[in-house]
Amino acid sequence: MKYPNSNKVYVKPKETTSNRGMSLEDDINVSNRYYLAHEMAVVHKKPTPITIVKVDYPKRSAAKITEAYFKVPSTTDYNGIYLGKYIDFEAKECESRTSFPFSSIHPHQIRHLKDVLRHGAIAFIILRMTSYDKDFLIRAGDFIDFHDSGTRKSLPYEWIEEKGFLINRSYQRPCDYLAIVKEVFDL
Amino acid sequence: MKYPNSNKVYVKPKETTSNRGMSLEDDINVSNRYYLAHEMAVVHKKPTPITIVKVDYPKRSAAKITEAYFKVPSTTDYNGIYLGKYIDFEAKECESRTSFPFSSIHPHQIRHLKDVLRHGAIAFIILRMTSYDKDFLIRAGDFIDFHDSGTRKSLPYEWIEEKGFLINRSYQRPCDYLAIVKEVFDL
Repeated sequence: MKYPNSNKVYVKPKETTSNRGMSLEDDINVSNRYYLAHEMAVVHKKPTPITIVKVDYPKRSAAKITEAYFKVPSTTDYNGIYLGKYIDFEAKECESRTSFPFSSIHPHQIRHLKDVLRHGAIAFIILRMTSYDKDFLIRAGDFIDFHDSGTRKSLPYEWIEEKGFLINRSYQRPCDYLAIVKEVFDL
Repeated sequence: MKYPNSNKVYVKPKETTSNRGMSLEDDINVSNRYYLAHEMAVVHKKPTPITIVKVDYPKRSAAKITEAYFKVPSTTDYNGIYLGKYIDFEAKECESRTSFPFSSIHPHQIRHLKDVLRHGAIAFIILRMTSYDKDFLIRAGDFIDFHDSGTRKSLPYEWIEEKGFLINRSYQRPCDYLAIVKEVFDL
């Protein structure tokens, strides 16, 4: 199945910085390295999808990409295996104090979450509300129900607090989502 | 865990073309789209990992990457979910009639296959032997046993024929690996 406009270029959103100076992506990567080193799970961030237009092959040195564009991602950014199960998630930072706009998640990514859910994946969204300095795990099923109900164009913060699960932090696991995954999905 | 030299640039190997004019990657992508559309599995190729050095942000148009380099991949190229299970594989084309050199698979990728195997993944390698116009599925466990035994620097073709499982082709599924996965891994 080919998504319409799947090769459409888009302007990559600038990363927002959390109060702690580390991005959510950095914190998840550090946590993932901890999980891997301690044989708890294997989860990697996928590379940023780009369309390569021009490559130079200079003699005796590495190939250099001289023209490329960011592509709209067709899947989420993270997936892997935990306790023998397939896990899949997207991570987003949000600066608003009132809500998380659906426009921040690409329709292809929502589609992907639905796809993997149908196949039995453990799927969720990690949402960093930077104004509150809090990270929430939101089950993909809950997110999709609310999204598809069509009543709103964003997740209200009250909903996030009610439905989301607060993710703990520690120095070695600055976004310790696995601890909460085990509980939330009853593994 | 940080792998040594994980940011080392390298020259991306040119794609070899099979006798049929379509690359193995193309054939797997077509098969994956079929699997997705028919709700059989969700498997995607990961984007090519690159290190972005310079990006131009022209006004009113898409961001343009003007300097980037290919990175050594730290995982395999494909993963996803099939029958509720995590599956993970690497795909390689080989022109030799006699053997498949281990130098064609990066040590990080072998390490990754070991990582996911330990966590219960269905993991394998798809090997297209272009001179014979045949695709084989090789269980990651078999591959690793032979690789780690240290007796050879390549997989001899006789070993591939003995241990590998021939993958069928059809117009809609030009590399129908799922059919064989089900059998081989007894799902």
